[in-house]
Amino acid sequence: MIICGVMTGTSLDGIDIAICEFNFFQNKFKFELIWHGHFCFFYELRDLLLEIISKKHIDLRTLSQLNIAYTNEIAIAIEDAKGKSGISNIEAVGLHGQTLWHNPEKEAFSGQSVASTFQLGSGAHLATILNTKVVYDYRTSDISLGGQGAPLVPFFDYHFLKSMNENVIALNIGGISNITFLPKNCSADEVIAFDCGPGNCLIDICAQKLFGVDYDDNGHLASQGGIIPEIFDKLTTINFIRQKPPKSTGKELFNISLIEKFFGKYSKYDIIRTVTEFTVYAIAENVILYADPVSKIVVSGGGAKNSFLLSSLKRQIEGSKITIIDEIGIPSSAKEAIAFAFLAYCRLLGIATNLPSVTGASEAISLGVIAGN
Amino acid sequence: MIICGVMTGTSLDGIDIAICEFNFFQNKFKFELIWHGHFCFFYELRDLLLEIISKKHIDLRTLSQLNIAYTNEIAIAIEDAKGKSGISNIEAVGLHGQTLWHNPEKEAFSGQSVASTFQLGSGAHLATILNTKVVYDYRTSDISLGGQGAPLVPFFDYHFLKSMNENVIALNIGGISNITFLPKNCSADEVIAFDCGPGNCLIDICAQKLFGVDYDDNGHLASQGGIIPEIFDKLTTINFIRQKPPKSTGKELFNISLIEKFFGKYSKYDIIRTVTEFTVYAIAENVILYADPVSKIVVSGGGAKNSFLLSSLKRQIEGSKITIIDEIGIPSSAKEAIAFAFLAYCRLLGIATNLPSVTGASEAISLGVIAGN
Repeated sequence: MIICGVMTGTSLDGIDIAICEFNFFQNKFKFELIWHGHFCFFYELRDLLLEIISKKHIDLRTLSQLNIAYTNEIAIAIEDAKGKSGISNIEAVGLHGQTLWHNPEKEAFSGQSVASTFQLGSGAHLATILNTKVVYDYRTSDISLGGQGAPLVPFFDYHFLKSMNENVIALNIGGISNITFLPKNCSADEVIAFDCGPGNCLIDICAQKLFGVDYDDNGHLASQGGIIPEIFDKLTTINFIRQKPPKSTGKELFNISLIEKFFGKYSKYDIIRTVTEFTVYAIAENVILYADPVSKIVVSGGGAKNSFLLSSLKRQIEGSKITIIDEIGIPSSAKEAIAFAFLAYCRLLGIATNLPSVTGASEAISLGVIAGN
Repeated sequence: MIICGVMTGTSLDGIDIAICEFNFFQNKFKFELIWHGHFCFFYELRDLLLEIISKKHIDLRTLSQLNIAYTNEIAIAIEDAKGKSGISNIEAVGLHGQTLWHNPEKEAFSGQSVASTFQLGSGAHLATILNTKVVYDYRTSDISLGGQGAPLVPFFDYHFLKSMNENVIALNIGGISNITFLPKNCSADEVIAFDCGPGNCLIDICAQKLFGVDYDDNGHLASQGGIIPEIFDKLTTINFIRQKPPKSTGKELFNISLIEKFFGKYSKYDIIRTVTEFTVYAIAENVILYADPVSKIVVSGGGAKNSFLLSSLKRQIEGSKITIIDEIGIPSSAKEAIAFAFLAYCRLLGIATNLPSVTGASEAISLGVIAGN
C-alpha cells in the first residue's frame, strides 16, 4: 500500500512529506521510502499560525477557515510531491496536523476533569479534494485512555530499528532530545521512550543570539571554544536531566532564560561549546542511567548533522556505537513523516499503534480517524 | 444495524438522542425508532458554550479542552439513553457536533479563497470511551465540493417521506422555517429544499419580551389578538420571503430589531398575532411560489405544536393536507437526531448522502468521518 505521510512540527518550519510503500508479510512489516521532501508554508499562513500559537487564542471564523486553509497547503504540497515523485496512486495520507494545544494531564475544566490535544487540519476536506483516504487525529484516543498521546514514533522505531542481536537506542535530536530504548530482541511492552533534555534548542539560541546565524553548522562554532565549568556545572544541576522516566519537557524549561545571563560575560565560543557539552551530557546521562550504554545509537533529527556534538557524545558513552539514521536508509529529516505514514497504514489494517509502556495508556489502540471513501 | 443519532442545535437547548435500527433491503431503506429523548447540558458547559459563541473567539486551551468536555457530556447522555432504553448493543453513533462556525461562501483568507464549517466534538474521543464507531463532521466534504454543507436532513426526507402518489412537503418549523419539497415519485436530483423565513424565532421573541414566557403555547396568546395591517404589510415586504431558492437565512435577518419598535405602541396580543400570521405568510408564499400547494405537508420542529399557527397555515395554502410528523410515527423532536443516525448508517455503507440539487455541491459524496475500530 502506498501511503503519503505528512508532518508539520511545532517549529512551523514547513511541511515534511514522505511517500512510502508498506507491506505486512509473514508477521513482519516492511517499507520502502519512495520519495521525500520538504515544503515551506506560504508566508501569510505561517505568520498567522505563529501569531495564533503565540497569542494562544483565536476567533471562531479564523479557527474554521484556518483549518481549511492549512489543509489546502498540505494538499498543494502533496500534489507537488506526486508530481515530483511520479507517484500518482497514493492510497492514503497520514496527516499529523498542526498541534495547537497538548494537555495530557487531567485538569479541572467546566465541572469535569479533562485532558486533551488539538491538531489543526481537516481530514474530511483533504480526503475530499484529493479523493483518497486520510488518517489523522492520532493523539486523541491515547489520551482518552489515560496516556500522554505521545511519543508515537517509538512504534515505528520498534518495528524498523529493533535488533535481535543488540540493544538499539533511537536518539532524536530535535529542539528537545528524546530516546527510544529497544533492548535486544525486546517485545513491544519492553520499549522505553522519554525526553532527555535539550536537543538543538540551546545551541540554536547561542548561534542566533551570539553569532547571528540560524544554527551551529556541524558544530564549527562550538569546536573553537572551551568549556566554562561555572556554566556547565550550573546547567547539569537541572533536576529534569536525571529525573526518572517517563518524562517529557519543552521550551517551558529549556529556553533562553537559562543562558542569556552569561552572554557578554564570557567568550561566545566558550558559551556555545559549553551549551553543546551540556546537551551531550543530558543525552549521555539518560542513556547511561535509563537505557544502556552498550547499544547501537541511531541518531536522527537536526542534531544528527552536528558531527562535533556526535563525537563528544561518543566519548561520553563508553561502549556505544553511534550511527546516523541516514546510514541505514532513512533520511533523518523524513523520519517523522515516514512514521505517520506507517501509523496510517496500521490504522487501515486495524493494528494497534500506541505503546502503552511508552504513553501510559491503559490499553493499546489503533490510533487515528479515517476520512474518505 | 442499531445506531444512535445525536443532535445539539445552535440554540444550545440540549442534546437530542435517537436510537434507531436501520435496514437496507431490496434497494429500500427501513428504520425503526427504538428510543428517543432529550438531555440538558450541564449549566457550566452550556454557559461556556454560550459565552464563546456570543464572543466569537476562544483561547486555545479552552478549544482543546471544551472539545473533550462537550464530547464527555454527549457520552454521558448516550450511556443514560442506553440505560433507559435497555439497548446495549449500539453499533455506531452519528454525532452532528456543536456548530461554532458555518461559512459556506468562499471568502478571501490568508491568501486563499476559503469556505468552511466547524463543529465541536471529538469523534476519536467518543469512539474510544464508548468503544464504538462514531460518524461525525458531516458538513465539511459537501463544502469542499462547493456546496453549502446544508441542509442535510432532506436526504432523510427523500428516503422516508417521499410518496409515489402525492407531492410531499417536509416543513420544519424551528427558529427558522424550512421546507423539503418532494414531488410525487421524484428522483433524488428533483428534491428541492430551502429556508422560507421565520419559524418560531419572532413568535418566541414576542412571547418572551411581551409576556415573559418562553414560547406561545399552542398559539394561545396569538389567538387572543388581531392582525395589525401596518406591521403585517411592512414585514411581508422583506425581500428574502419571495426570493428564489436556493436560499438560507438565520438570526442575522430575523431578529428582535424587526419588531421591537412596535412594542408598547400596540396591544401585545395583536403584535404576537401579527407576527404569527407573518410567519404563516412566509411559509405559505414559499409553498405556493416554489413548491406546490397541492401537497401533503408534514410538519416537524417546535412549531408543529402550535395548532393555531397550523390552522392559519391550512387556510393560507388551498389544496394542502397538513399533518404533523408525529402522526406518521416520527416524533417531531427526534427527527434531526434520527436523520443524523441515518446519515451515519449510510456512511458506514459508503452510500452518498448529500443531495447536490439541494446543497449545490458538484457531486454526491458519503458525508462524515469515521472514528473507532
